[in-house]
Amino acid sequence: MTPKAFFHLALLTSLFVISHSADIDYNAAPPNISTLENGALFHTWRPKAHVLPPSGHVGDPTGHYVDPATGLFHVGYLYTTTANETVPRGGASASTDDFVTYRDISSPDPRFIKPGGINDPIDVFDGTVIASGYQGKPTFIYTAISFFPLSWTVPYVPGSEAQAMAVSEDGSGQTFTKLERGPVIASAPFGLNVTGWRDPFSLQDSGFDKLLQSKENSWYLVVSGGEHDVGPAQFLYRQYDSDFMQWEYLGRLWRESANTTWGDGIWAGRWGFNFEVSNVFRIGAEGADLNGSLFSLVGAEGGKYGGGRTQLWAAGDLNPPTNETVSFNVTMAGILDWGASAYAASGKLVPSSAKASQSSGAPDRFIAWLWLTGDYNALLTKAQGWDSMLLTPRELYVETISNIVDNDAVRETGSWRIANESSASGTVDVVTLGHKPVREAISAYKGKASNTFVEPDRMLNGKNSTVIPFSQATPQSKHYILSASLSFPSEARDSPDLRAGFQILSSEQESTTIYYRQWPSPLPCLYKYAALTANFHPEVSNELFVVDRSNSTAVAQTSDSGINTGNEAGKFRLWDIKDSSGSAKMETLDLQIIVDNSIVEIFANNRFSLSTVVL
Amino acid sequence: MTPKAFFHLALLTSLFVISHSADIDYNAAPPNISTLENGALFHTWRPKAHVLPPSGHVGDPTGHYVDPATGLFHVGYLYTTTANETVPRGGASASTDDFVTYRDISSPDPRFIKPGGINDPIDVFDGTVIASGYQGKPTFIYTAISFFPLSWTVPYVPGSEAQAMAVSEDGSGQTFTKLERGPVIASAPFGLNVTGWRDPFSLQDSGFDKLLQSKENSWYLVVSGGEHDVGPAQFLYRQYDSDFMQWEYLGRLWRESANTTWGDGIWAGRWGFNFEVSNVFRIGAEGADLNGSLFSLVGAEGGKYGGGRTQLWAAGDLNPPTNETVSFNVTMAGILDWGASAYAASGKLVPSSAKASQSSGAPDRFIAWLWLTGDYNALLTKAQGWDSMLLTPRELYVETISNIVDNDAVRETGSWRIANESSASGTVDVVTLGHKPVREAISAYKGKASNTFVEPDRMLNGKNSTVIPFSQATPQSKHYILSASLSFPSEARDSPDLRAGFQILSSEQESTTIYYRQWPSPLPCLYKYAALTANFHPEVSNELFVVDRSNSTAVAQTSDSGINTGNEAGKFRLWDIKDSSGSAKMETLDLQIIVDNSIVEIFANNRFSLSTVVL
Repeated sequence: MTPKAFFHLALLTSLFVISHSADIDYNAAPPNISTLENGALFHTWRPKAHVLPPSGHVGDPTGHYVDPATGLFHVGYLYTTTANETVPRGGASASTDDFVTYRDISSPDPRFIKPGGINDPIDVFDGTVIASGYQGKPTFIYTAISFFPLSWTVPYVPGSEAQAMAVSEDGSGQTFTKLERGPVIASAPFGLNVTGWRDPFSLQDSGFDKLLQSKENSWYLVVSGGEHDVGPAQFLYRQYDSDFMQWEYLGRLWRESANTTWGDGIWAGRWGFNFEVSNVFRIGAEGADLNGSLFSLVGAEGGKYGGGRTQLWAAGDLNPPTNETVSFNVTMAGILDWGASAYAASGKLVPSSAKASQSSGAPDRFIAWLWLTGDYNALLTKAQGWDSMLLTPRELYVETISNIVDNDAVRETGSWRIANESSASGTVDVVTLGHKPVREAISAYKGKASNTFVEPDRMLNGKNSTVIPFSQATPQSKHYILSASLSFPSEARDSPDLRAGFQILSSEQESTTIYYRQWPSPLPCLYKYAALTANFHPEVSNELFVVDRSNSTAVAQTSDSGINTGNEAGKFRLWDIKDSSGSAKMETLDLQIIVDNSIVEIFANNRFSLSTVVL
Repeated sequence: MTPKAFFHLALLTSLFVISHSADIDYNAAPPNISTLENGALFHTWRPKAHVLPPSGHVGDPTGHYVDPATGLFHVGYLYTTTANETVPRGGASASTDDFVTYRDISSPDPRFIKPGGINDPIDVFDGTVIASGYQGKPTFIYTAISFFPLSWTVPYVPGSEAQAMAVSEDGSGQTFTKLERGPVIASAPFGLNVTGWRDPFSLQDSGFDKLLQSKENSWYLVVSGGEHDVGPAQFLYRQYDSDFMQWEYLGRLWRESANTTWGDGIWAGRWGFNFEVSNVFRIGAEGADLNGSLFSLVGAEGGKYGGGRTQLWAAGDLNPPTNETVSFNVTMAGILDWGASAYAASGKLVPSSAKASQSSGAPDRFIAWLWLTGDYNALLTKAQGWDSMLLTPRELYVETISNIVDNDAVRETGSWRIANESSASGTVDVVTLGHKPVREAISAYKGKASNTFVEPDRMLNGKNSTVIPFSQATPQSKHYILSASLSFPSEARDSPDLRAGFQILSSEQESTTIYYRQWPSPLPCLYKYAALTANFHPEVSNELFVVDRSNSTAVAQTSDSGINTGNEAGKFRLWDIKDSSGSAKMETLDLQIIVDNSIVEIFANNRFSLSTVVL
């Protein structure tokens, strides 16, 4: 057990600060937050190293691109000027040249597009930027909303969604101007009673070109949605003209039956009833790879018991056109971030040549941003003046884990795929989605050695739950990274009660516990769907990361705050690995925990993440 | 020559009258109309027996239907509240139970729909009513306009037109309410660079059902338009759901090459570049006939030299699906009304069972309404407070002319088709589109015997132009019908200078001359395209009706009025008919001239019409 903590540099996205007159005594019992002035809690839980605007509500990340004129990377997100307004009112963005420091595209209102035009009288939803699009300029193709309600749970209002276009002519991406014309795709495919049809994602892919006999370097749009009583789907369109004004509908790229699961549903929840925010891309061992494996990120709606949304990833084969068009056939699937409010992952290909990649020397990358939706707690967001944020961007790649003992556990239909088998050694290699925080951010956080300390290794062994303080100073700051490697002896496999982890953000009154609990494989049948219910009943599940928030904040206890203190959990399996000597032992659990005031992001072994809010 | 004149009863569509303070001395030279107050000329040229609202601008007739609840026939038209505003701002209507008296659907604003919704922020264009449509209620499917400009002469703005739906729930057709949803057809067919895509026309047709293997009694929509650099077209859609919310695109029903003509273009102008206001229907000898011949009315844009618009009709065969869908293959075509400003014919099937047909005992009819666009003279319409109107509705049917001498003239590609040939007698029977004013209106006009007088037959023979007054009182009213039969001796064929007709609306200072001039067949090559240029150079054409307006109004001469006094002309051929004795003589010219103040409608032999404004 080798915990390390790195105190990181605070990296504001903006210098804009809301002043507040009420001084709060943080050593006293919390006041009833309903009594606080607007903005009184502006700083209390505000992160310092995440992308969020000076105020207001952050929605889905969307519309990222590398600007061909400036070389800057633009990270976009849906934005409402008022906190706690869950309906987004436009798209905002910040630009960066190093994935460390971001600047709002404009201030105080960082929006590059607002709803209210002829195509989008009601709202602007997620889109995709083609950096050299209409007349060679950055072009945002987005879902333009004309009617509400809009939910897979109610009858679809035809015409509520259309895919429209706006173009940035200012050389800086500050504004995207809507063309005086109708949508580029005016309505959902004819004859389908869709559950949704939104969030276009643009890509070029030679594999698609070949199977579809398209012109080389054709652009495609993948629109997310589904069909009532049929299931979720991705709708595929192909560029038809050089200015991206028309898109040819080819058919459904990916279809799943409604309310079905990948395998037993343990590792990837349910496919749900409707897809949102699809991303389609190829990655290899190093990152983005045009000849790599085809992956998709997708938000599944209704993907858990009791509804809700799940941020899934899937890898698949691209099969030649049959009934409708080429089809994506899943070979493995998982959950990108197990946090109950982590959703709407939106990624972008960032080539090594991009200015923002040059300082780190990173290869071509596919970098994905997730939205942490926050709690939608009206009192809280009123007192904060802001809510929700984007999580630390992640680099996605294909992770290979070698020499895993070939047992029942590895043969499950899970979030991995067996890539190689060695019957001689009785092992397999598996591949899965690798994901880790963007390297530049981690480097910057670790950059100041003076802020870094390393705890010595230690062995813990106790039948009862014990908390052992760090031997050095425990972080006083609420902004740090904690890296740790936890090794378990083989006997741990037979110790179902075993838990190991960290208490963070703790004081005399408050603490949050992050721990991993394992169970021998194969799983008992009783717990077959445990992962699905993990967010609701983590105590019945195993091989789980748990974030116990029950004692996280005294505010929840002292006022009628409605603050969510439910526990979070995510499924994670440590493999038995055979070393060169032929003996097997449990994989080391490599943890990286980013604590940025109220944001806690847990990364494990480059293949697991769980992000949550801890107040 | 047997002229008769019937003075008709004045039939206002509304009792609404604009008061005006300036009394005009109609015996003095006209004032400069720019000096007149608004409304000063409200009555001066206002018709009494045509459909027009109390004030404002009348546009295309549209959205007629027989209301299933009341049995009333509703005649609709695009409407702008302000005269001389050529951009329509909604649809208005009047209802009738006898095709004689009409009542504005509401007063003073007769609109049943206004633009400005999410689907039609800019304008409401022509539509079609399915009387038992959405949830069994009268349903208006119309072209919803979101962007301008809209013209076949400029690049199409994608999304400028959509086909949207509004439903009347009030039991009276006073209001049609837009559903809170998008258009029923959101955009023009994919991949076509259309010149236009508007004016849906709804029909049921067993011939379509059979060839398209549709469900029995399927509804179809025919949308008018064309494709840039390709030609005008009708786009065919089929009902997909019981509530008419979705329409399946089948392909182009009718395609013509841009800027081509029917035959030599003499009888039907050019197909032009873009179709508008298509009607598709079946008629027989008596009127509407579900098993009759397939006809289409269509407005052709760019259909004459110098641009402009032509109101065409065409008959054709319905061919089985080949490339796209069933196709309409023209067998004959003509001009429905030769008046340069008569356009946008919009018809409706009126069953014999309709309340509005019961008093006359008329059979099933297809009744078409044309728009007389007026002059768009800003000064005039300002002083009038209204402009444009609907012409007397016409009953359409298949007219047969028997025993025509089989010569070169009848073998031309014209607005007729040879139905039977008798080589024994050397004659043919031809069919063509029959059209005549709706019977109830004519009966009502002729109804008061006290207002009717009959001129005795007379023979006119003079080499020079002479005007011979009626032996009885010449009509002093400006509201009458004149019926006349003119017989020409066979020698007239060799008398190219022969003209015969009437002076109307004449006084010491003003007169308008309507005459027919013929020419031996075949036509000299020199005049091959005379008909096309007739509106511009009537003097070079033959077999023509001419309305000489050069001396129609003193206003044109005494003020800088910009009033159009150009002559109107239309192509009409009198056949040589063999009687039972075997001798041939020129067909009698049967004229019916409706004079309703400034509106003059000329009908000849149930197969020709020319309507114009005479000030």
